[in-house]
Amino acid sequence: MMPKLSRLIQDTITSIQPISRDFHARAQVVLNGLTKPVGSLGRLEELAAQYVAITQKLPPLMPDPVVFTLAADHGIVREGVSAYPSSVTAQMVMNFLSGGAAVNVLAKQVGARVQVVDMGVDGDFGNLEGLLVHKIGNGTNNFLEGPAMSDEQANKSIEVGIRLVQDACDNGMGVIGLGEMGIGNTTSSSAIAAVMTRQSVATLTGKGTGVDAERLAKKVQVIEQGIEQNKPDHHNPLDVLAKVGGFEIGGLVGLILGGAACRVSVVLDGFITGAAMLLAQALAPHCQDYVIPSHCSAESGHRYILEHLGLRPLLDLDLRLGEGTGACLAIGLLRSSLACMRDMATFNSAGVDGAEASVPGPV
Amino acid sequence: MMPKLSRLIQDTITSIQPISRDFHARAQVVLNGLTKPVGSLGRLEELAAQYVAITQKLPPLMPDPVVFTLAADHGIVREGVSAYPSSVTAQMVMNFLSGGAAVNVLAKQVGARVQVVDMGVDGDFGNLEGLLVHKIGNGTNNFLEGPAMSDEQANKSIEVGIRLVQDACDNGMGVIGLGEMGIGNTTSSSAIAAVMTRQSVATLTGKGTGVDAERLAKKVQVIEQGIEQNKPDHHNPLDVLAKVGGFEIGGLVGLILGGAACRVSVVLDGFITGAAMLLAQALAPHCQDYVIPSHCSAESGHRYILEHLGLRPLLDLDLRLGEGTGACLAIGLLRSSLACMRDMATFNSAGVDGAEASVPGPV
Repeated sequence: MMPKLSRLIQDTITSIQPISRDFHARAQVVLNGLTKPVGSLGRLEELAAQYVAITQKLPPLMPDPVVFTLAADHGIVREGVSAYPSSVTAQMVMNFLSGGAAVNVLAKQVGARVQVVDMGVDGDFGNLEGLLVHKIGNGTNNFLEGPAMSDEQANKSIEVGIRLVQDACDNGMGVIGLGEMGIGNTTSSSAIAAVMTRQSVATLTGKGTGVDAERLAKKVQVIEQGIEQNKPDHHNPLDVLAKVGGFEIGGLVGLILGGAACRVSVVLDGFITGAAMLLAQALAPHCQDYVIPSHCSAESGHRYILEHLGLRPLLDLDLRLGEGTGACLAIGLLRSSLACMRDMATFNSAGVDGAEASVPGPV
Repeated sequence: MMPKLSRLIQDTITSIQPISRDFHARAQVVLNGLTKPVGSLGRLEELAAQYVAITQKLPPLMPDPVVFTLAADHGIVREGVSAYPSSVTAQMVMNFLSGGAAVNVLAKQVGARVQVVDMGVDGDFGNLEGLLVHKIGNGTNNFLEGPAMSDEQANKSIEVGIRLVQDACDNGMGVIGLGEMGIGNTTSSSAIAAVMTRQSVATLTGKGTGVDAERLAKKVQVIEQGIEQNKPDHHNPLDVLAKVGGFEIGGLVGLILGGAACRVSVVLDGFITGAAMLLAQALAPHCQDYVIPSHCSAESGHRYILEHLGLRPLLDLDLRLGEGTGACLAIGLLRSSLACMRDMATFNSAGVDGAEASVPGPV
């Protein structure tokens, strides 16, 4: 029997609306009146117009961004697919909480807050300031020994993401960034990407945190075997999540769906958030309108995911860290685009001549 | 007789040294100790290491960036190559000074200061607060009626750029951004690029501020004719600048050479700064090590310039505005990279396990 989406997830999907064409057009009129040739700020203008069409406020409110860094462990690590031991997931959670990780530093640069969430780290943190605990389990199962999680756990992980963004929404933040930490989660993401894009595992599998050629071959073989044994159904994203996914990946799917439902911009990060986006988009095609791509990862499969989704990255930086690092940088670009929209002079106010008559101009 | 470089320019070129390999290696050691897989911040790590190798300070001083926006007019506009009248150059200078242009807003976002310089605007601003006046002339000559400027003017324009960066250097700023404003300067830049890269004018000529197909054809024909009549010698960048260049473009060449001589990072902007870089690099190949590319412009020739220079843009935003807008965004990325280097925890300090033994890791 095929797993079914919970009522909360179904309702969330149903409530996702297309972004406002009217506000998009009104934003474009404002942008065209600014002292620059029409369209010359390129994709910065698109970012600003998209944000206005999502939030339906003009002039736009400056965002108060939250980057959600969701952490969980992966049973598949026991097959030797990662360069790092599972213990690093919990250690990095501590590092996030004390502000020493890359995502903390980059978030600060763009005025974003990092919210760390334990979605299923293998270990108990007790009560730690700054950590939200929504543990679905102590890491997933090894997907060579059955599905990574139960259908119920898959539903729950998505629901956690939806509720996280709903709670944050009440504070009028406008934009969320996606981030994650989980030793083994490039393996899970490659499996999801292979199932959802129908491309070969070898094409979609990279070195993750930095495995050598031997381990990479092993990783590909493990993923192929996991798909072969579990037979995830690409028509059913919940089934794919349950069989080869991860708790943090489910949480990311929920953040995307919930973000779109709450009308906030959702900034993607790297390969793992891309895999989550493949699932979210299959569940709710409209959520794509709410998404901002950030960068194309050095993790080789990311480019294929972005192509499959029709998303063009803003940054070309060979990042392969995750955590939400790329999302932070893209949030900086979004902020810059909105600042231009709000603070630039207009042709009228600055007394600048428009384009000459033969050219469709900003006059 | 071939024009000769002035003594100041020659001395500046001679004083440009390769960047420090020692500091580059030391920076890499620091980066490898941070809590992330080795190299996983990709080109952000390269930016940080380059900056340390240039400034020779470790830990790096946070930059106090200045974006130089050099303005000048172009006689070639009288041939009808632009969508905007020449009067817009002076009007935009006023807009820069009152803080209403895109470069002002974007500079503020990344903590940079904009320094506006009149290199040869057609018109007299009198004494205006915030404007540096280093006028080489009231706009260049129409290069269909002889060279755009004299050899002496070409030398002078480069010297202005060198002195600007020398003066600013004393304040220990670490990085400068290049920017420009000059109606007609994509025409001049396409001419320079065609001569220096030996590619066809049609390949290197785009719509600038937004001309229609008819004017674009006219623009290509004007550039071809200008090159045909003036015969700029691609072995002699000064000759190319004098015959088809612009005063602000000469100033940009000087900023690049002077920046490299003073050991500061030089952040490129779009198409026009790319044309200046072609000239600077031909004069002093080492200056390339000091340069940070920012974005690839929607102006079609920019991509060919970047390829010719072997520079890979950091951002893919379809900008085509100039002013220093793309440079500002790249300065934001540089700042973020240095913040990671300075503020991230190390594997030791955070108690995070390194990679397992089989993998070359950060331990």
